[in-house]
Amino acid sequence: MIRSVGIVSKPIKDVVCSIVPPLMEWLRARNIAVFTDTETQDCIGQPGAGVPRQALAGKIDLLIVLGGDGTLLSAVRALGGHKVPILPVNLGGLGFLTSVTREEMYPALEHVLAGQHRLSERMMLEAEVWRNGSAIERQTALNDAVVNKAARARMLEFDVFVDRAHVGRYRADGLIIATPTGSTAYSLSAGGPIVHPEVDALLITPICPHMLTNRPLAVPDTARVEIVVAVAGEAAHLTLDGQTGIQLEPDDRVAVTKSANRVALIRPPEKTYFEVLRNKLRWGER
Amino acid sequence: MIRSVGIVSKPIKDVVCSIVPPLMEWLRARNIAVFTDTETQDCIGQPGAGVPRQALAGKIDLLIVLGGDGTLLSAVRALGGHKVPILPVNLGGLGFLTSVTREEMYPALEHVLAGQHRLSERMMLEAEVWRNGSAIERQTALNDAVVNKAARARMLEFDVFVDRAHVGRYRADGLIIATPTGSTAYSLSAGGPIVHPEVDALLITPICPHMLTNRPLAVPDTARVEIVVAVAGEAAHLTLDGQTGIQLEPDDRVAVTKSANRVALIRPPEKTYFEVLRNKLRWGER
Amino acid sequence: MIRSVGIVSKPIKDVVCSIVPPLMEWLRARNIAVFTDTETQDCIGQPGAGVPRQALAGKIDLLIVLGGDGTLLSAVRALGGHKVPILPVNLGGLGFLTSVTREEMYPALEHVLAGQHRLSERMMLEAEVWRNGSAIERQTALNDAVVNKAARARMLEFDVFVDRAHVGRYRADGLIIATPTGSTAYSLSAGGPIVHPEVDALLITPICPHMLTNRPLAVPDTARVEIVVAVAGEAAHLTLDGQTGIQLEPDDRVAVTKSANRVALIRPPEKTYFEVLRNKLRWGER
Amino acid sequence: MIRSVGIVSKPIKDVVCSIVPPLMEWLRARNIAVFTDTETQDCIGQPGAGVPRQALAGKIDLLIVLGGDGTLLSAVRALGGHKVPILPVNLGGLGFLTSVTREEMYPALEHVLAGQHRLSERMMLEAEVWRNGSAIERQTALNDAVVNKAARARMLEFDVFVDRAHVGRYRADGLIIATPTGSTAYSLSAGGPIVHPEVDALLITPICPHMLTNRPLAVPDTARVEIVVAVAGEAAHLTLDGQTGIQLEPDDRVAVTKSANRVALIRPPEKTYFEVLRNKLRWGER
Repeated sequence: MIRSVGIVSKPIKDVVCSIVPPLMEWLRARNIAVFTDTETQDCIGQPGAGVPRQALAGKIDLLIVLGGDGTLLSAVRALGGHKVPILPVNLGGLGFLTSVTREEMYPALEHVLAGQHRLSERMMLEAEVWRNGSAIERQTALNDAVVNKAARARMLEFDVFVDRAHVGRYRADGLIIATPTGSTAYSLSAGGPIVHPEVDALLITPICPHMLTNRPLAVPDTARVEIVVAVAGEAAHLTLDGQTGIQLEPDDRVAVTKSANRVALIRPPEKTYFEVLRNKLRWGER
Repeated sequence: MIRSVGIVSKPIKDVVCSIVPPLMEWLRARNIAVFTDTETQDCIGQPGAGVPRQALAGKIDLLIVLGGDGTLLSAVRALGGHKVPILPVNLGGLGFLTSVTREEMYPALEHVLAGQHRLSERMMLEAEVWRNGSAIERQTALNDAVVNKAARARMLEFDVFVDRAHVGRYRADGLIIATPTGSTAYSLSAGGPIVHPEVDALLITPICPHMLTNRPLAVPDTARVEIVVAVAGEAAHLTLDGQTGIQLEPDDRVAVTKSANRVALIRPPEKTYFEVLRNKLRWGER
Repeated sequence: MIRSVGIVSKPIKDVVCSIVPPLMEWLRARNIAVFTDTETQDCIGQPGAGVPRQALAGKIDLLIVLGGDGTLLSAVRALGGHKVPILPVNLGGLGFLTSVTREEMYPALEHVLAGQHRLSERMMLEAEVWRNGSAIERQTALNDAVVNKAARARMLEFDVFVDRAHVGRYRADGLIIATPTGSTAYSLSAGGPIVHPEVDALLITPICPHMLTNRPLAVPDTARVEIVVAVAGEAAHLTLDGQTGIQLEPDDRVAVTKSANRVALIRPPEKTYFEVLRNKLRWGER
Repeated sequence: MIRSVGIVSKPIKDVVCSIVPPLMEWLRARNIAVFTDTETQDCIGQPGAGVPRQALAGKIDLLIVLGGDGTLLSAVRALGGHKVPILPVNLGGLGFLTSVTREEMYPALEHVLAGQHRLSERMMLEAEVWRNGSAIERQTALNDAVVNKAARARMLEFDVFVDRAHVGRYRADGLIIATPTGSTAYSLSAGGPIVHPEVDALLITPICPHMLTNRPLAVPDTARVEIVVAVAGEAAHLTLDGQTGIQLEPDDRVAVTKSANRVALIRPPEKTYFEVLRNKLRWGER
């Protein structure tokens, strides 16, 4: 039963002002407590009333995210491991993750409050950086963990291991370890396949590999994927969901596994996974 | 315990003559009964002594396949659903499936007879053709089920469904439904990813799609993939493992699911999956 | 000065009936003689008045083609080598070649009659089939000459030569030799690049090559490209512009060169080459 | 007539020491003056005797470059616009540009001294950076001019123009403008085609484009290609031949044209362009 809802939004003043206040009113009229993050409150001109994103998770039964796929990735990061269902609403056209449009928000919310919604549980990644025998960094990601080169360097050289077996030495601009959810994000641009969220796999997609036969590779999601950067022109970076990152040193070992945390996205009542794909990739048109 | 072994080989006279007789002797010296298929016996000049491939399965505890990936696919087809472990030996260089070389055959056999071998269980596909409400054809495949156009037609137009959800209308030369095992065969040439055999997925790879955004798609192996050919320039065909096929009529429905049968390949004692990949795709070289 | 105009159209009765009679009237009102092909006249219900497409070329100063890219390819074939400027009008949305829409037809015609139009001259291919020392077939194509396999065969094996130098032995579904004009047709689906019509090159694009490093290759348009099919599963075909073809025998030699004929397309007054690309490939959209 | 030869080498001490002194002796025995660059002289332990690379060009009739493709690119840069034929010798296996192996060096030199060699003239690029109405940077490149993103940014957003016509707005990791020579370098890793050096074209290859239909594009070599970076996550860079670069500011305009300078590479006596391709890309093997 939903008694308390959080709202996180991409801080576009006009849009937020026109959506959030009536949404809050609509929820309160149904005896539901509402919490918004600081950015949203600043937007609607009530700066004191917001709650920091990290503090929201403990207070709510449902999180409404207003924005695009980027806002959702950032909200998921702020939730930490809290198991709160998320209703992602796209303020623009349509995202792979934020497939509920602004017009569909209230019907979708009524479904949710009536308990009639379906959840799409998504796996997450955990990425660690090991240096001199210690894990110096540990982060989670919903889409992908990316090792890539600095702008001026031409190429990285790195070894990839899956469960300690040597996959190969790659010379490439970088490497993407993606979840099925992330298969429609950066990995797709780099030539990777689309992987349905219910396939239990990690996707290893090289970025501009020197060796033309280094093709994208899907491995079981129980695998531990490790990347050891051997030669970095200047510097290599690890980036999570395109948002936070860390500079890598030679001989750093990046280890990526399935996270214990999962994300529960509320699916739009009527749309299949393939319908969202078709719309985003414009498969229906000539 | 292995008491009886079958031998199936690609009928290359010189090679078979030099390998099969000493192999038979080696096995018999260990009190193991040996059965060979008709083609092999013809090759070594004892035409009467062979057993038809279809009849082999019931008589043996182990099948040795001498040849390349094509010979293995054909032997698997002949086994029907019989659960006989297969030791595939490559007579030429190295295949994705036939990764034991001629030199490694005896050491590998000793492992097997000592019960020290590991099996790699591979899923198979079942493909049905539905016409006017009846299944007029039902076949299995280890690598792939392929719908493609006749040589002179430029393009097919077909709809793809996954568990009754419409994936999209494709205009393309054809479509490949591949197992993870088949991901390194035809699907790879058509731009598909490499899928580790332990990933529980079916791979849907379009062949020369008109729509550039029609990328390869991995779905759970529990899925029922259906293809309905709407427009065929002249004629469309369904081909299984590149070996047997059937001509399709407009409005035929091809349904592909995971087969109840599996194939048990004996893994080479020392090689990982990735080592075979590296060697076949020459990842180690500049 | 334009005194006589030909009209060729895709025989879609409703569309032709609504466009062609007023167009004929419009032209005649400007003292221009009008000839239509048999198919068009049948469509508008005056079966006797048409001229066979092959006979049109000698009678006209301008050819209006109503249809899509396929209708244009077929009209070009019928023109033989006659140097008649072509105004291609797309009856549906937009083609790479037929970039003038139905709405833009009259303004474009006024430009042409006033002599203000620009021409885009396009190279054509000449393809010959050599068997036992004789050229048994000689055809031209505006888009491409394609060697491909029959539906049930998995792969062809063929050698490619450029000006007698051996490019390589290919194992693939086939090979496309395309003009820059054809680079946005079948070659694009097979992974080829887009080549601007003013680049003097032939494009050699393999179809589903077994060797992942067999990438599309652009050579000077002065080159003679030869394909010798070594092994054909069942049969290989040569197809020109996706329309006419011939079955190849083993050891046939297909030779492709630049044709002495060129095609002169009337460019839409306002659109650049890139604008047509952007619209067809939807580059402007998210 | 060759009276004076320069030697530039990749500073690998052992290799240089074993090759350069006998090579100098061999040349001097034929009454040819020899100049080496500072790096080479340091390597062979005669630090004072070298000439800076930039000063070599004015003194010599032939330049021998010992190393890989990278050493050649750097030597070409040092030559400025001087028209000195270059004999590139590969110290390792084989490069696309440095196709003469160590074993073939003396036979190739004898060909050159006898005036029997053939030259392969290669076009170069000129890249300018325009900021606030002035060209603040002007550089040449033999392979490519690359605009790409910093490591931590996910994507650039930029507009591309060809001869002032708008090609499109790209959202991608970057963009490669390559010569035919550069088509086998970075552009190939990013999915570009192979372009024969005698095709007069520039190749525009996007790096990981967000829009899957943004395919590589070949335009005439007379074109002026301009890139205007609209949005840079952190910073964008322009890099020439993977060697020197400059950080770009928003609204900088990068203009790339064919350079007035050309490079004359001495072709190996026996090898065709395709033979080098075949060897480097291993087309001959299964």
